[in-house]
Amino acid sequence: MSSSFGKLFRLTTFGESHGEAIGGIIDGVPANYTINIEEIQAELDKRKPGQSSIVTQRKESDTVQILSGIFEGKTTGAPIGFIIPNENQKSKDYDHLKGVYRPSHADYTYAKKYGNRDYRGGGRSSARETASRVVGGAIAKQILASKGIDIVAYVDQVGYVQLSGEIDYNEIENNVVRCPNAEDAKRMEDLILTTKKAGDTIGGSIVCEINHVPPGLGEPVFDKLHAELGKAMLSINAVKGFEYGSGFDCITMKGSEHNDLFNEDGSTKTNHSGGIQGGISNGMPINMRIACKPVATIMQRQQTLNEQDEIVSLQGKGRHDPCVVPRAVVIVEAMAAMVVLDMLMRNSFE
Amino acid sequence: MSSSFGKLFRLTTFGESHGEAIGGIIDGVPANYTINIEEIQAELDKRKPGQSSIVTQRKESDTVQILSGIFEGKTTGAPIGFIIPNENQKSKDYDHLKGVYRPSHADYTYAKKYGNRDYRGGGRSSARETASRVVGGAIAKQILASKGIDIVAYVDQVGYVQLSGEIDYNEIENNVVRCPNAEDAKRMEDLILTTKKAGDTIGGSIVCEINHVPPGLGEPVFDKLHAELGKAMLSINAVKGFEYGSGFDCITMKGSEHNDLFNEDGSTKTNHSGGIQGGISNGMPINMRIACKPVATIMQRQQTLNEQDEIVSLQGKGRHDPCVVPRAVVIVEAMAAMVVLDMLMRNSFE
Amino acid sequence: MSSSFGKLFRLTTFGESHGEAIGGIIDGVPANYTINIEEIQAELDKRKPGQSSIVTQRKESDTVQILSGIFEGKTTGAPIGFIIPNENQKSKDYDHLKGVYRPSHADYTYAKKYGNRDYRGGGRSSARETASRVVGGAIAKQILASKGIDIVAYVDQVGYVQLSGEIDYNEIENNVVRCPNAEDAKRMEDLILTTKKAGDTIGGSIVCEINHVPPGLGEPVFDKLHAELGKAMLSINAVKGFEYGSGFDCITMKGSEHNDLFNEDGSTKTNHSGGIQGGISNGMPINMRIACKPVATIMQRQQTLNEQDEIVSLQGKGRHDPCVVPRAVVIVEAMAAMVVLDMLMRNSFE
Amino acid sequence: MSSSFGKLFRLTTFGESHGEAIGGIIDGVPANYTINIEEIQAELDKRKPGQSSIVTQRKESDTVQILSGIFEGKTTGAPIGFIIPNENQKSKDYDHLKGVYRPSHADYTYAKKYGNRDYRGGGRSSARETASRVVGGAIAKQILASKGIDIVAYVDQVGYVQLSGEIDYNEIENNVVRCPNAEDAKRMEDLILTTKKAGDTIGGSIVCEINHVPPGLGEPVFDKLHAELGKAMLSINAVKGFEYGSGFDCITMKGSEHNDLFNEDGSTKTNHSGGIQGGISNGMPINMRIACKPVATIMQRQQTLNEQDEIVSLQGKGRHDPCVVPRAVVIVEAMAAMVVLDMLMRNSFE
Repeated sequence: MSSSFGKLFRLTTFGESHGEAIGGIIDGVPANYTINIEEIQAELDKRKPGQSSIVTQRKESDTVQILSGIFEGKTTGAPIGFIIPNENQKSKDYDHLKGVYRPSHADYTYAKKYGNRDYRGGGRSSARETASRVVGGAIAKQILASKGIDIVAYVDQVGYVQLSGEIDYNEIENNVVRCPNAEDAKRMEDLILTTKKAGDTIGGSIVCEINHVPPGLGEPVFDKLHAELGKAMLSINAVKGFEYGSGFDCITMKGSEHNDLFNEDGSTKTNHSGGIQGGISNGMPINMRIACKPVATIMQRQQTLNEQDEIVSLQGKGRHDPCVVPRAVVIVEAMAAMVVLDMLMRNSFE
Repeated sequence: MSSSFGKLFRLTTFGESHGEAIGGIIDGVPANYTINIEEIQAELDKRKPGQSSIVTQRKESDTVQILSGIFEGKTTGAPIGFIIPNENQKSKDYDHLKGVYRPSHADYTYAKKYGNRDYRGGGRSSARETASRVVGGAIAKQILASKGIDIVAYVDQVGYVQLSGEIDYNEIENNVVRCPNAEDAKRMEDLILTTKKAGDTIGGSIVCEINHVPPGLGEPVFDKLHAELGKAMLSINAVKGFEYGSGFDCITMKGSEHNDLFNEDGSTKTNHSGGIQGGISNGMPINMRIACKPVATIMQRQQTLNEQDEIVSLQGKGRHDPCVVPRAVVIVEAMAAMVVLDMLMRNSFE
Repeated sequence: MSSSFGKLFRLTTFGESHGEAIGGIIDGVPANYTINIEEIQAELDKRKPGQSSIVTQRKESDTVQILSGIFEGKTTGAPIGFIIPNENQKSKDYDHLKGVYRPSHADYTYAKKYGNRDYRGGGRSSARETASRVVGGAIAKQILASKGIDIVAYVDQVGYVQLSGEIDYNEIENNVVRCPNAEDAKRMEDLILTTKKAGDTIGGSIVCEINHVPPGLGEPVFDKLHAELGKAMLSINAVKGFEYGSGFDCITMKGSEHNDLFNEDGSTKTNHSGGIQGGISNGMPINMRIACKPVATIMQRQQTLNEQDEIVSLQGKGRHDPCVVPRAVVIVEAMAAMVVLDMLMRNSFE
Repeated sequence: MSSSFGKLFRLTTFGESHGEAIGGIIDGVPANYTINIEEIQAELDKRKPGQSSIVTQRKESDTVQILSGIFEGKTTGAPIGFIIPNENQKSKDYDHLKGVYRPSHADYTYAKKYGNRDYRGGGRSSARETASRVVGGAIAKQILASKGIDIVAYVDQVGYVQLSGEIDYNEIENNVVRCPNAEDAKRMEDLILTTKKAGDTIGGSIVCEINHVPPGLGEPVFDKLHAELGKAMLSINAVKGFEYGSGFDCITMKGSEHNDLFNEDGSTKTNHSGGIQGGISNGMPINMRIACKPVATIMQRQQTLNEQDEIVSLQGKGRHDPCVVPRAVVIVEAMAAMVVLDMLMRNSFE
């Protein structure tokens, strides 16, 4: 099933939304780095359900238990095993889904692939799996921080509401949307609440920036830095598009505008390259943008298919997110952190 | 350097633009499939330089020599080794680049990563490497075709000129741009020629469609089908963005619009999912779109950096593409084919 | 740290002997196979401490908790996560080891590699990690059994006491040594008890047979079936040698004696090939033999090194095995099962 | 088919004995190491046919052509592609094998696995593939030598003739057997010639020593240093057994004899551990021993099976080795070198 990510710093995850626990193993963790477990939990809290009025009201504490690999506050070099118990499994919430494939969910495709069906909340396809990624990312972030590399993501669009004001990074965690401008955040929040009231959901996008990456990370040819970042982001539930640097805007640009001219110190006057040239970091800030679709579960009645190939009527129930991006910000950061640390480790032999 | 792609059907490439030859090894090729070597060469011809007035005028026949793995016209199960000799290496064309980093090229990042410099045409970072991918893709395509799966890509935008007319797949190879509408193709060609005359280059985008993929391909969690396709496409030189299905348009959509409602046969009325749900194919056509930046080498004078950290003036020389997309179409198809075959093989145990 | 084993059927393990729990994730488990969890526990019981008078008297129930991947008694295709709590961690038993490297243990090499030291029972190097392998192997065995493939291992030598009587497979689990001949088992048991009384330990060897493997498993060139089996066995703690078929005896043989002549049904009259030719199974029983060194922890006083580069006197303490082979039999079977199932899955595309 | 070996320093090979060429790609080669191509060729010459009266009399110059990855005498960090043309393909020599499976060859198992048959000299199963390994190993050796690590292998037994005299490393390349004692070499040579005259073949064994490996190489748990060395050696054609340090002799040893007691400098008084403890190098010389079976092709008439399931009579023809070990010595060194360099690279992040 390919539940592993990364080559040298490698996360493997397990768990369904309605089993006893989810969790993972982080292998290849370099030794002797101080790890603050409260910080890991703080990252998980940014993803957890019930954190605000614009996210799902499921109640899960998402408390991580570290089982190995850290001794006296430091990494030992051994794999870090961890579990996050599932606490609030209202399987009954899903009884109406028995035998029914929800539109634009993974129900139908999992059933076709595996020939079986765990109807309780999507089973393995549930975004709950991403909590394990946040643990991996939180550990990667702490190791990267000790090398001066930092990663920040934020919401830059919800529906038609774009981030248009000035960016204040300190604002991101000040509002429930995780938008770096308070006014834009308010407009986004309003849109999400209106959408929720209508029993509907709405798409959005997230920007991620990685700063102070030294030149030289990323592998040319197939494992280009942006190709690995792209795969990482596209592997997050609901992501439909990825761009970095000039992104899709490059289509209409000329080489004479697009080229990033050098300064004497090797930095560039513009950054259409998004910090990556030929798949390798050039020392400039790395930036990327990720498009997230509207959540498929809506609180409106829809026609859909059941296992007997009949069209049936389905009324959405349960506790779902009207918009995925506020909780996805920390997942985006986690995936970015794991890619960069993995690339740093792949780059280390001389 | 990570010169390998794929897990079970696996291409490894080698070679610089100015060495003796480039080439590769395709490992994991299933046995007993008939391979038409002329078709491989025909694919290479779609990528080769000098094929029309809107591409680089370098003359390279790009003739592939298959050295192993095919016996009496069929795959044996052994790896297919091949080489493509470099014929037209005008290293002198690159003498003016000795010691100079070109803007928005990989010169600077390779030098920082590897601590050395092969100034002759970009060395390993040259897009010439993609010829080996076309060989791998051509073989994958033939195996997929025997299972009814076909792949088609085309140019849908050059600069501001978008594909707006009706799509005629038979038209794609009728024009030098590889656009599926003759009138749009003419407008794109004109823009490329005008740009070229100005010594400049222009961006563009490519659409790729994969038809008749059975439901069930793709691995959930990290190796989602679209995540692997995204990585594949982003690993192609000049690609800055990737989207599938509704792509970036999903940001402004509501769940009630975006959801693909089922027909009784399991197909869907719309295809915002782009043929993939939860990372797994659902049997609908798979589609994606790729943004390509304008080629960095322009025939205008630019300021740039040299190895002594001085800003110097650089005049573009040599024979370069004014727009990368016409030659990239077949590379996009090749990468798509390798991903789909690999996923088909990863899906086969019961 | 490379805590993963297998390519398609893939076990990743975590955990130290003195943490809260050990465990693992089995990824790539094919869907819809019935799994009997009692059988998994029964396998673990064959490895657990305290099972007889000739093994370590530590008390650990080694109870496995399956956390995911099995729904209504069957595999779903999702990864199987599991933990085995550590119950009997007498860390005090190891206080005398603080700052001291035990001879022929991994203490010194781990300290040199990782620059840190978890002195409590060897940390990650403890053979306790193999309990997780037994879980992976038990699941693999059940899937293989459904395809008619069975695996059996037994002790064939302890010190100078060789298996010399007739082999009765039903006898293996009838005696504490796991030798397939009751009389030989008694002689081996006596030797182990005598050795234990002397505060010493003794080596031994294990034979493993795999029956009803279809022809065609194993990958030529680097991943030959016996090369993967060899790596699997050599990765078990204490193993110093591996041979299959004629093994080391082949050195003195002539081709005319060694060649296995065919019967008309494709079977062979002899089996010096050990069921594998050119790295690929030929349908004959696969057999191999593994040499295990005497356990390094002895209850005698030895001179050794401490972290201050001083030679100090060390008196063995704690509860250790006088001979490793009786408990290792089930680990050998587990590793063999995982290799064969992985190869079966790697062989499945047509 | 798994034609790749190594994780970070990674060789992929292609080619059949009777195609146009064999060759390979070495990926992950660290940059800026000086490579002497004559030394690579000198290594190939130790493996090539026709080098003495006790090896096959086929004439192949085995001339390697390096196609990429080395610029101005140094590695660039790009993959090294190379080919070795097949010169002396007497396919007619194999006409008598059409439709016949040779006993104890890979003919039958390849046919069962792949459903096809390349009867010309074993196709991919031919030991000719190992020439590509020698190229990879020769490059690894040169990089290791620059770090003070050296590798030496030699023949220590042919049939019943064991190395019994004093070891003189300078003698190894002085005799056709590659035995480090001239008298023993002569006795081995005589046995090989007598065996050849009888139309028969004989087994043998090879010892390999790796010196000056720093402590800390090798990955605990599954990728133990000796497990990777074991897999490497077992993947060489004809190898039936592998042991390191005390090897199979450990079975009869007691812990009190087997334990390697420390000196104050961390070295040990004995080396039963063979330089590896817990899967990690301890700084002592690494040593191992490999058992090779007698070559299956004999010049005597044997009964065998054909593709119609009939027993037929087969008379060996062609030019084959009466004993494989003299030519295998350099292959053993090559595999050891690639494992150690790969482990050095895997160990480098801090």
